[in-house]
Amino acid sequence: MKLGLIGAGRIGRLHGEVITYYIPNAEIKTVSDVFMNEGIKNWANHLGISNITTDYKEILSDPEIQAVLICSSTDTHAKFIIEAAKAGKHIFCEKPIDFNVEKINEALRTVNEAGVKLQIGFQRRFDHNFKRMKELIEEGKIGDIHIVKITSRDPAPPPVEYIRVSGGIFLDMMIHDFDMARYLSGSEVEEVYAQGSVLVDPAIGEAGDIDTAIVTLKFKNGAHGVIDNSRQAVYGYDQRVEVFGSKGCLTVENDFPNSVVLSTAENVVSDKPHYFFLERYMNAYVEEIKAFVNAIEEGKETPVVGNDGLQPVLIGLAAQKSLKEGRPVRIKEKFIL
Amino acid sequence: MKLGLIGAGRIGRLHGEVITYYIPNAEIKTVSDVFMNEGIKNWANHLGISNITTDYKEILSDPEIQAVLICSSTDTHAKFIIEAAKAGKHIFCEKPIDFNVEKINEALRTVNEAGVKLQIGFQRRFDHNFKRMKELIEEGKIGDIHIVKITSRDPAPPPVEYIRVSGGIFLDMMIHDFDMARYLSGSEVEEVYAQGSVLVDPAIGEAGDIDTAIVTLKFKNGAHGVIDNSRQAVYGYDQRVEVFGSKGCLTVENDFPNSVVLSTAENVVSDKPHYFFLERYMNAYVEEIKAFVNAIEEGKETPVVGNDGLQPVLIGLAAQKSLKEGRPVRIKEKFIL
Amino acid sequence: MKLGLIGAGRIGRLHGEVITYYIPNAEIKTVSDVFMNEGIKNWANHLGISNITTDYKEILSDPEIQAVLICSSTDTHAKFIIEAAKAGKHIFCEKPIDFNVEKINEALRTVNEAGVKLQIGFQRRFDHNFKRMKELIEEGKIGDIHIVKITSRDPAPPPVEYIRVSGGIFLDMMIHDFDMARYLSGSEVEEVYAQGSVLVDPAIGEAGDIDTAIVTLKFKNGAHGVIDNSRQAVYGYDQRVEVFGSKGCLTVENDFPNSVVLSTAENVVSDKPHYFFLERYMNAYVEEIKAFVNAIEEGKETPVVGNDGLQPVLIGLAAQKSLKEGRPVRIKEKFIL
Amino acid sequence: MKLGLIGAGRIGRLHGEVITYYIPNAEIKTVSDVFMNEGIKNWANHLGISNITTDYKEILSDPEIQAVLICSSTDTHAKFIIEAAKAGKHIFCEKPIDFNVEKINEALRTVNEAGVKLQIGFQRRFDHNFKRMKELIEEGKIGDIHIVKITSRDPAPPPVEYIRVSGGIFLDMMIHDFDMARYLSGSEVEEVYAQGSVLVDPAIGEAGDIDTAIVTLKFKNGAHGVIDNSRQAVYGYDQRVEVFGSKGCLTVENDFPNSVVLSTAENVVSDKPHYFFLERYMNAYVEEIKAFVNAIEEGKETPVVGNDGLQPVLIGLAAQKSLKEGRPVRIKEKFIL
Repeated sequence: MKLGLIGAGRIGRLHGEVITYYIPNAEIKTVSDVFMNEGIKNWANHLGISNITTDYKEILSDPEIQAVLICSSTDTHAKFIIEAAKAGKHIFCEKPIDFNVEKINEALRTVNEAGVKLQIGFQRRFDHNFKRMKELIEEGKIGDIHIVKITSRDPAPPPVEYIRVSGGIFLDMMIHDFDMARYLSGSEVEEVYAQGSVLVDPAIGEAGDIDTAIVTLKFKNGAHGVIDNSRQAVYGYDQRVEVFGSKGCLTVENDFPNSVVLSTAENVVSDKPHYFFLERYMNAYVEEIKAFVNAIEEGKETPVVGNDGLQPVLIGLAAQKSLKEGRPVRIKEKFIL
Repeated sequence: MKLGLIGAGRIGRLHGEVITYYIPNAEIKTVSDVFMNEGIKNWANHLGISNITTDYKEILSDPEIQAVLICSSTDTHAKFIIEAAKAGKHIFCEKPIDFNVEKINEALRTVNEAGVKLQIGFQRRFDHNFKRMKELIEEGKIGDIHIVKITSRDPAPPPVEYIRVSGGIFLDMMIHDFDMARYLSGSEVEEVYAQGSVLVDPAIGEAGDIDTAIVTLKFKNGAHGVIDNSRQAVYGYDQRVEVFGSKGCLTVENDFPNSVVLSTAENVVSDKPHYFFLERYMNAYVEEIKAFVNAIEEGKETPVVGNDGLQPVLIGLAAQKSLKEGRPVRIKEKFIL
Repeated sequence: MKLGLIGAGRIGRLHGEVITYYIPNAEIKTVSDVFMNEGIKNWANHLGISNITTDYKEILSDPEIQAVLICSSTDTHAKFIIEAAKAGKHIFCEKPIDFNVEKINEALRTVNEAGVKLQIGFQRRFDHNFKRMKELIEEGKIGDIHIVKITSRDPAPPPVEYIRVSGGIFLDMMIHDFDMARYLSGSEVEEVYAQGSVLVDPAIGEAGDIDTAIVTLKFKNGAHGVIDNSRQAVYGYDQRVEVFGSKGCLTVENDFPNSVVLSTAENVVSDKPHYFFLERYMNAYVEEIKAFVNAIEEGKETPVVGNDGLQPVLIGLAAQKSLKEGRPVRIKEKFIL
Repeated sequence: MKLGLIGAGRIGRLHGEVITYYIPNAEIKTVSDVFMNEGIKNWANHLGISNITTDYKEILSDPEIQAVLICSSTDTHAKFIIEAAKAGKHIFCEKPIDFNVEKINEALRTVNEAGVKLQIGFQRRFDHNFKRMKELIEEGKIGDIHIVKITSRDPAPPPVEYIRVSGGIFLDMMIHDFDMARYLSGSEVEEVYAQGSVLVDPAIGEAGDIDTAIVTLKFKNGAHGVIDNSRQAVYGYDQRVEVFGSKGCLTVENDFPNSVVLSTAENVVSDKPHYFFLERYMNAYVEEIKAFVNAIEEGKETPVVGNDGLQPVLIGLAAQKSLKEGRPVRIKEKFIL
């Protein structure tokens, strides 16, 4: 299967490498990026990708290309989804689809009408630990879900310039946790209450964002959720989940690059967790793209569909409003949409 | 040092045993309980306590008795504190002091005027794990505190009759976590938002309470807190704390009666956590009473003073109001007091 | 029940405190020590023990005393066992009974003839972890035992003067592990091979002992065992056991005073293990004496009988011979006895 | 870089896949196997390898091929090494080189004379955990090494037909542990004592082998080692290492496919370890071949040289002799060589 890659930034290149090295039955035929440069050219060359262009339309008009990976900046996602769908290409799109719910809805409608497949880039669902958690939940091991707890902390904040266009902590960072909360609870979120502060870096506040946040959720199925985020965990990437239910509790501790323990006259020491998402979720990225390629080949639904791209944005917008107004906000409040 | 014990229910007997067996330089001289019965008599006899009475005044008027342990029902705490203080006795009082802030304030004023010592029964502060956490925080190991997370779940709900008079989950159960949050953060709580549901047993709802709750806190020092409670963790007592700061993170996992791991053809298995608070906090109860006896002997302040009894009640009342009104509530809102 | 304590050194005082504080139905009536001093007097006084003597015969001739705790130096154990048995006292004796097998056998014969109870001080059998392991083995959870692995390391070597009279690492230190190996395997040891060196402190070598040893065992039931000892684990007391069988494997990791984990920009750190045996096995010492008192009160066999005192000495002597001769030694080789 | 693969059994295919998928700058040009069949052809085809032959000489005579991977049966290793070296190819050879020390020596001499590189397939050295251990040892974190402990257990025994030609547990299975012991201790082994039994399956005994073994080692640097092996750990592949030294201790626990913990009303459960070496050491296999390709490209020594292939065989032969004769055996005893 031949694919086209739109956007060759960090995450685009990651997907390109995953397809080249780990997925024998798929290859990137063409890479497009409006900001083409030597770095991208060398990278593509190294992977044996010969078609390089600044015009994504070369991908969309290529009849040999079955599917596209949209890894460009967020403000172009909806537009590319719509055009790709109209061109009959299956679509893998990085999160978030957009910050504007109308644009998301339009994109999803077009995908629907075109009958192409769409998968949203929530790679954590493919993580060895969270996937296993989900299986055990579905096997009924913990009964009805009462509480979902998610901790998600980055090792260091991104540049303030990025923060400014990121959509804010809820739509840029916690959106992954909103997806995880929906995935594990098996339920939509009804109400959101957000607390947050600038505790890490005042510059983040000046850019109009916060860097520390706690969000509580009420799910339609009656369960409760709580997510905490920080833009800076000095010890490294911190990704933990707990699901508590009527018959038991599931926990996943953070992931580490090794499990060596050193006991000395001073204390008992081990290495820090994985540095960041590339290290932690490398396998998940591979599994994610495998699942996308599989879904196309076997003509079945992708594991993360359009609505899975829409709902976390709704939750994120509600969290923004909650933080601003200092009160819990229901997802259905018309003014979010 | 001779002490009097007022109230010989479960917790009163626990303190009696702790003093008899573990604290060589203190003894219970007299036990009073309005509901005196054979069980109490046998128990006291077994411990070698010969003075048994239904009249607590025998304790207060005994010049040989330096201190009293108030372990009677909550509605009598304030009254006994006031009378004991006036009688010049040092006071150890179980939590909560009362559900009524005016009564608490009156009791604290009396204690103050009498110049006696008062210690409130938040034994978790003396737990080997939480005490060590506090030390590390005070040594500055994690820098400024950003997030305090507390999980506290009971193995099974108490009888519904108890729930009815308990003061509700926030004042009966989560009050320990409010204390822990203040203790570890080193800051007072400013604002509370409470979510909760009846997920464990409808009878708890009929009794006017909830059995599952998530509360988020804003501290005066800018930190955030989150506490989750359930009246029923089928796997046993679940007590975990995490404190995340600018320079690092402290975690304490749950405590287990043994660390034996059994690996078989099916899976990897270990025993459940301690069943409940008596097993888990036995050492903490000993340390707590040792600290009380020490404070008296050495004429220094007790480690858990009157205000430590008042604040968690204020937070609990704010949580009740928050749950009822579906909005965050500031501790200072006049109508709580 | 009234007991007499013969020998008020470190371990004797420990048992005295255990009985005074933790075992309501037993008390030390008399303490004897040939090296009586102010320290012992003050200690006994503090515990409320009024009879203090340099003559152990005051204990043996006291009809009120039902049982004795022999905590004197090893070379006096056999003699005191024999005299106590003849005086009709039940006996708790610290390990090892003696280094001379003939003397042990004579002591055990006398105990047998007198019909008194004898318990040997292998307190590790009462440890929360190892006891649980034993239960699971007896429930058949791991099937037939194939391999028993024991790690046992002290935080620091004892003074060289002690080493000189200690009987050597096998009879002083590893003897506890020989007992644990027999206890968990449920089988006697047939053959021993010992390796060892002076790696910690040359002075230990000059005193005729080694400080690092690895011993492999063959059990009568076909299982294999391996024990490693070091006189100095700079990180603290290290006590771990693993039992591997046809249906699974049991492991017990080392015990720690708390489970607080600190994650910082440098690494992930926790506190060192318990410092030494007093901290680690405090509860085991209590359970051990409770079991002894119970056995007497209920007229049943003690949980660690005379043969449990003999066998580890035989294994230790075989290990000494193996180390000296550089070959595996069978327990039955006549010249050990 | 182009490589030839000699022998396309399980391990040969693994290396073929590793090179194809994970190592961009290397490719398998030709595969040879005397037992060529449809399975191998389809496999090679799937990987895009077009040259398939039953004659390994096509590889050795191909001037484009720089290096060979010898993954054929053990009895052909020495012969292929010699011929490949004479043909000027760099060589990666699976362990063991041979069971005959003379043949190994001849092969190593030829490699030396030819000036080609040779790497032996001890992939565990490239494992994320053991590599990290080695780094910490070399940084001096644990001081001088006193004890090396290795546990290595397979999930299930191989077919008895395999056992018969395997060279026995010491040369087939424990040889990896002998390598690990040398690697971590940084010292050669001087003396070996082996214990072992048939506890898993009598058919293994009938085939002339044992299935359970404990081997103790004395290293030239004064350290001691102990290795335990079982052909059947019903819970899965068990690979653990501990290195104890004068300044501390390093431990690595077993590796698991996920870290999800399920707490229920019965117990606390997690999934079994990785099933076997393919799952556990997948990353190590990749790193191993990367290191080989790197060594060739950069003209430096391989990380596991010829002597690293010889020494573990010497240790294994000594272990066989020790088991047979029931005594410790020194590596230098002439009759091993």
